[in-house]
Amino acid sequence: MVLLGDGSPPEPREFADPVLEDGSVLLETLASEVCGTDVHLQHGRLSGVPYPIIPGHVSVGRVRETGGVVRDVEGAQILPGEVVTFLDVHRTCGRCWYCLVARASTRCPERRVYGITYSATEGLLGGWSERIVLLPGVQIIKLPASLPPEVFMAGGCGLPTALHAVQRGEITFGDTVVVQGAGPVGLCAVVLAQLQGASQVIVIGGPPARLAMARALGADLTFDIAEHSPEERLRLVRDATGGRGADVTIEAAGVPAAVGEGLHFTRDAGTLVVVGQYTDNGSVTINPHLEINRPHLRVLGCWGSDFSHLYRSVRVLARHAERFPWRAMITGRYSLQDAGAALAAAERQESIKSLILPNGSLG
Amino acid sequence: MVLLGDGSPPEPREFADPVLEDGSVLLETLASEVCGTDVHLQHGRLSGVPYPIIPGHVSVGRVRETGGVVRDVEGAQILPGEVVTFLDVHRTCGRCWYCLVARASTRCPERRVYGITYSATEGLLGGWSERIVLLPGVQIIKLPASLPPEVFMAGGCGLPTALHAVQRGEITFGDTVVVQGAGPVGLCAVVLAQLQGASQVIVIGGPPARLAMARALGADLTFDIAEHSPEERLRLVRDATGGRGADVTIEAAGVPAAVGEGLHFTRDAGTLVVVGQYTDNGSVTINPHLEINRPHLRVLGCWGSDFSHLYRSVRVLARHAERFPWRAMITGRYSLQDAGAALAAAERQESIKSLILPNGSLG
Amino acid sequence: MVLLGDGSPPEPREFADPVLEDGSVLLETLASEVCGTDVHLQHGRLSGVPYPIIPGHVSVGRVRETGGVVRDVEGAQILPGEVVTFLDVHRTCGRCWYCLVARASTRCPERRVYGITYSATEGLLGGWSERIVLLPGVQIIKLPASLPPEVFMAGGCGLPTALHAVQRGEITFGDTVVVQGAGPVGLCAVVLAQLQGASQVIVIGGPPARLAMARALGADLTFDIAEHSPEERLRLVRDATGGRGADVTIEAAGVPAAVGEGLHFTRDAGTLVVVGQYTDNGSVTINPHLEINRPHLRVLGCWGSDFSHLYRSVRVLARHAERFPWRAMITGRYSLQDAGAALAAAERQESIKSLILPNGSLG
Amino acid sequence: MVLLGDGSPPEPREFADPVLEDGSVLLETLASEVCGTDVHLQHGRLSGVPYPIIPGHVSVGRVRETGGVVRDVEGAQILPGEVVTFLDVHRTCGRCWYCLVARASTRCPERRVYGITYSATEGLLGGWSERIVLLPGVQIIKLPASLPPEVFMAGGCGLPTALHAVQRGEITFGDTVVVQGAGPVGLCAVVLAQLQGASQVIVIGGPPARLAMARALGADLTFDIAEHSPEERLRLVRDATGGRGADVTIEAAGVPAAVGEGLHFTRDAGTLVVVGQYTDNGSVTINPHLEINRPHLRVLGCWGSDFSHLYRSVRVLARHAERFPWRAMITGRYSLQDAGAALAAAERQESIKSLILPNGSLG
Repeated sequence: MVLLGDGSPPEPREFADPVLEDGSVLLETLASEVCGTDVHLQHGRLSGVPYPIIPGHVSVGRVRETGGVVRDVEGAQILPGEVVTFLDVHRTCGRCWYCLVARASTRCPERRVYGITYSATEGLLGGWSERIVLLPGVQIIKLPASLPPEVFMAGGCGLPTALHAVQRGEITFGDTVVVQGAGPVGLCAVVLAQLQGASQVIVIGGPPARLAMARALGADLTFDIAEHSPEERLRLVRDATGGRGADVTIEAAGVPAAVGEGLHFTRDAGTLVVVGQYTDNGSVTINPHLEINRPHLRVLGCWGSDFSHLYRSVRVLARHAERFPWRAMITGRYSLQDAGAALAAAERQESIKSLILPNGSLG
Repeated sequence: MVLLGDGSPPEPREFADPVLEDGSVLLETLASEVCGTDVHLQHGRLSGVPYPIIPGHVSVGRVRETGGVVRDVEGAQILPGEVVTFLDVHRTCGRCWYCLVARASTRCPERRVYGITYSATEGLLGGWSERIVLLPGVQIIKLPASLPPEVFMAGGCGLPTALHAVQRGEITFGDTVVVQGAGPVGLCAVVLAQLQGASQVIVIGGPPARLAMARALGADLTFDIAEHSPEERLRLVRDATGGRGADVTIEAAGVPAAVGEGLHFTRDAGTLVVVGQYTDNGSVTINPHLEINRPHLRVLGCWGSDFSHLYRSVRVLARHAERFPWRAMITGRYSLQDAGAALAAAERQESIKSLILPNGSLG
Repeated sequence: MVLLGDGSPPEPREFADPVLEDGSVLLETLASEVCGTDVHLQHGRLSGVPYPIIPGHVSVGRVRETGGVVRDVEGAQILPGEVVTFLDVHRTCGRCWYCLVARASTRCPERRVYGITYSATEGLLGGWSERIVLLPGVQIIKLPASLPPEVFMAGGCGLPTALHAVQRGEITFGDTVVVQGAGPVGLCAVVLAQLQGASQVIVIGGPPARLAMARALGADLTFDIAEHSPEERLRLVRDATGGRGADVTIEAAGVPAAVGEGLHFTRDAGTLVVVGQYTDNGSVTINPHLEINRPHLRVLGCWGSDFSHLYRSVRVLARHAERFPWRAMITGRYSLQDAGAALAAAERQESIKSLILPNGSLG
Repeated sequence: MVLLGDGSPPEPREFADPVLEDGSVLLETLASEVCGTDVHLQHGRLSGVPYPIIPGHVSVGRVRETGGVVRDVEGAQILPGEVVTFLDVHRTCGRCWYCLVARASTRCPERRVYGITYSATEGLLGGWSERIVLLPGVQIIKLPASLPPEVFMAGGCGLPTALHAVQRGEITFGDTVVVQGAGPVGLCAVVLAQLQGASQVIVIGGPPARLAMARALGADLTFDIAEHSPEERLRLVRDATGGRGADVTIEAAGVPAAVGEGLHFTRDAGTLVVVGQYTDNGSVTINPHLEINRPHLRVLGCWGSDFSHLYRSVRVLARHAERFPWRAMITGRYSLQDAGAALAAAERQESIKSLILPNGSLG
């Protein structure tokens, strides 16, 4: 299925069988996901996208064939029949100033992303497809036996994003963490905050079904933004934190106003991680004396994720596959042909996360 | 001299000879400073100030008498005749949540500050006075032989403030640092950035005399805000940094717009330290997607300073007393009676730093 | 009960009812603990102990009386009838070079410790006593309703020690952690490593009962040092970590050889925290090229704990009181009169942790 | 010139003109260096060296020809006639667990090093040669106009090594730094410690000429190990640091005993960086209670350097080319034919740093 970026629904397209160059891998797609980015892509809201594209940046597949010997990061050979995932970010150059001097590979200008910045004319480089071609150099991870593909997909692209944000927030034992937003990134942050030692996790978001999911994942308190005014939310957070505010706030809401509100949720000398502002939704007005300087705050933008975040996500999921109700985050399963319906549900925010199953089932 | 907070000039006042309680120290004031805070105090712009107050928070004095044995942080006894300074911040409690759990002592609600939050009715607790009483527990530092009192006063309250900010910015070898603002904090940051290994220091500020001072202190480039529009300044910074922006930006300008501009001066995955927003001067509008999240920025509020910053400032000055033209930052010397003129000059921003010499000279 | 430091068993001693000075608190002791330190104290193996002493540094008590208004770190008043604990470390000065400049309060030379460095001649300053006097300035924590006193005592002094060590180790998501030693500190580290995101925890220690406890607390693998030679242990750790070794190793074993072994357990560019070498048990030979420099290792000594570690321990326990089988770590409960038997059991390493219940029960 | 690894002097060898593949660069060698590693290489003391090799890992050359368009890290094209240097470490894979998950590229098992782990049979991959071939992917830096090639070579391979070590030590304003060893790494550390804000730098080493060089570079105190016993050295360091020891110690001495001594030189809660143990010179006995655990020490092995360290070294040198007497570190200049004499002088430790000038002069 391809997107054209003009708001039209995804269209089916046929591709010739790919010829595998040395170092590449052909996957039979088990599952790919539908996320908010795909809705943006449908409507052409991201710049520089080489339409038509095959969407689906985080996927799981079964290896059908490899071009020569291909190895994973541990040096183990990738073998036909194995179930693997891979980092959607490709061609991080490892040679530019950002990669080498700043060590900020998520700002590398060379990086290309499966399902987003590769064109369908370049090949099967997205997950909404029966087959995926992993180009030479794509970083591949074998799913451990203890990690069912479905659980991996429940984490999806939200988990490495949240993992990067939570790592950056440097949560420690006993901290109170406020998570703004109850979408996939926010819900994953609820789990990860606990796994870094937080003693109290508060979610500010909606709708009620997502807040119920947050509680099932371990959130101690959830406040529905539809029920509480900004003033009330601030009071509720203060009441739950001895009047001080959260040690760490993870903004995963996406609206600019959340950043302003997050500054208030955070205690003096605390940390606000801004990870939800993935697209340009406008501005927010802040008072730098009252909201940054005097409270000695730390505000950390967090962009993208790299291989370490995906690798660590897989390790976390493998360890905690049964402890948390990951599967409950998957609220829809669609065939390739029904991808349009999946997108529409995502746009209406009816679902938490939908999967595309191009070959019928997750096996 | 006391300030009443109603905009009137400082007034002389007579005090009885203080009785020293055990653990306290009586100083003959050698010098105190006039800084922007004192102008705010004169006009009553800070809340919670117990007027009348004796201004002057950073001072140098000669010990006249001690109440029993008093020791410095190294355990050395404070002796009559020695020249000392002291941390203006007093009574950081060491017992509250901010002191003990957050380890953010500059947010301790118990802290009192000489020359700002002590009333003249409580005693000689400010530097614009012939004598200063150091209450029990005030942290005292003997000036090393290699550090002339005048050089110490040139650093004044700006140096520990800047030291805290520069430390927080985590500058490393070869970095480009932009300093916004050429007042005492900004000028000290110019020196300190070099002492952390910065290879290029750019100052954005004014007026020309202060920018000349910045260059004398080692700034590589200075841009006058009166001569260049915000767009030009951004282009000039980009031109000087391979198009990327500064690794670390130190905002020491004080106007809210500087924070918005500082976000643009800073390269992706770089750091902006907000230290200049000491009072509430209003708001600034920012775009959290374009200016924080996507560039993976780190924005660090920096409030106040603690004993370590003053201690390290003294060490830095003692080592580099002759390498940098510190004394040139002192642009005015006033007797106690002329404190009003000193304040007026500070308000007109004619001076960089003025000293009050209550006993006639710095010895 | 007091210890004389000559190897003799603890002796009963009667004390007059204490007179409470302002700011102090009188507790009815609910429980105190017996730890390895107490065995050292019995035999006079620590220097500078002012015998006779009342042992018992971590304790829980019920408030009987306060000298005036006493508050906790949150500003809440301590009231009669409340169940509290307190930091055994007292009089950290907050004024010395280590407290103020190095910010290393556990190296403050002024600190005194309940149950260790206070003499019985100074009052009821240890937990093996029906009453405990909390001197002015002792930092008190009210046990939350969700934290049964028994669960708190199960963590005991090992938990804040382990928390400090684990924090220092900077474990992150997906890490493999090796814990050397299965005593109270090691067992607490097993829990805390998981709470920081470790995906695999391996314990090297013994005897079998303690290793079973480690597994009950979540350890993935345990290796008995009585069954495996050092070479085998290293191979087992390597086998479990893709040949690389642990990301973080926590040495909580106490014998010098464990440090040498820990260097080998740790992967290149990994971290070894040395927290178990509480007393001088001799030396170990290391090869700095092969074991530190070439592997780019980080070796971190970790001494003592401060209020933040106790505070965070209480928060962790309150959140996870039921998730982990804390109570199973308590292997003995003794009356004051039977303290000698408790000490003897600790010396024979038969127990994991024994409690002294001076007033009969934990209520 | 090639080394055979059997202790014999370097031998001249003729090579055919290289054919440049796309992405490679041919340099006319302006200078290469002679360092302690070359003496080890001559005698076959490093394992896995593919003799015969062309020594010389850090070099400066003038571009003669490029294979197609080749760019530096800033994206600027490398042009014939330009003077450049390059990172001797090549083929850091960017794909292995150490590169991607641990982010410890200096432990990447794929890395190859010019002048050390490349054989002469593979081409002109060392600096003791009239021409050097930079293979595709070698990271190249243009020397800035303000950095004379001779000054760059004075820093040589010691500067990025020392820069990595000093960065890892996290020196801050006012710190006292002890540097153990007065070879090229130690001498560079003397400069770099000052550039990170150290207020006092103490060098423990020898012989007298190198200590004089250390003082010329800014060391405050130097102690000759030939004149002072280990006990005296410890006392001298304590005397210079208020009895506490150094905040940060940089071990650049190379003998195992220096690590044991460095533990004592360092204050409680301070840092010892172990960077000098480049080869296996045996063992040292330490007491982990007294020397690591109780003093709460941080001991950091530091291996190799990556591109960021070389890039930052060039920036530091360009800024401070005239402030420090770099050129005085060059104590010998040799033609290619006299490389044997250069090696012999290095082995006798008569020189600090010798240059090989294969084309007669530095231009």
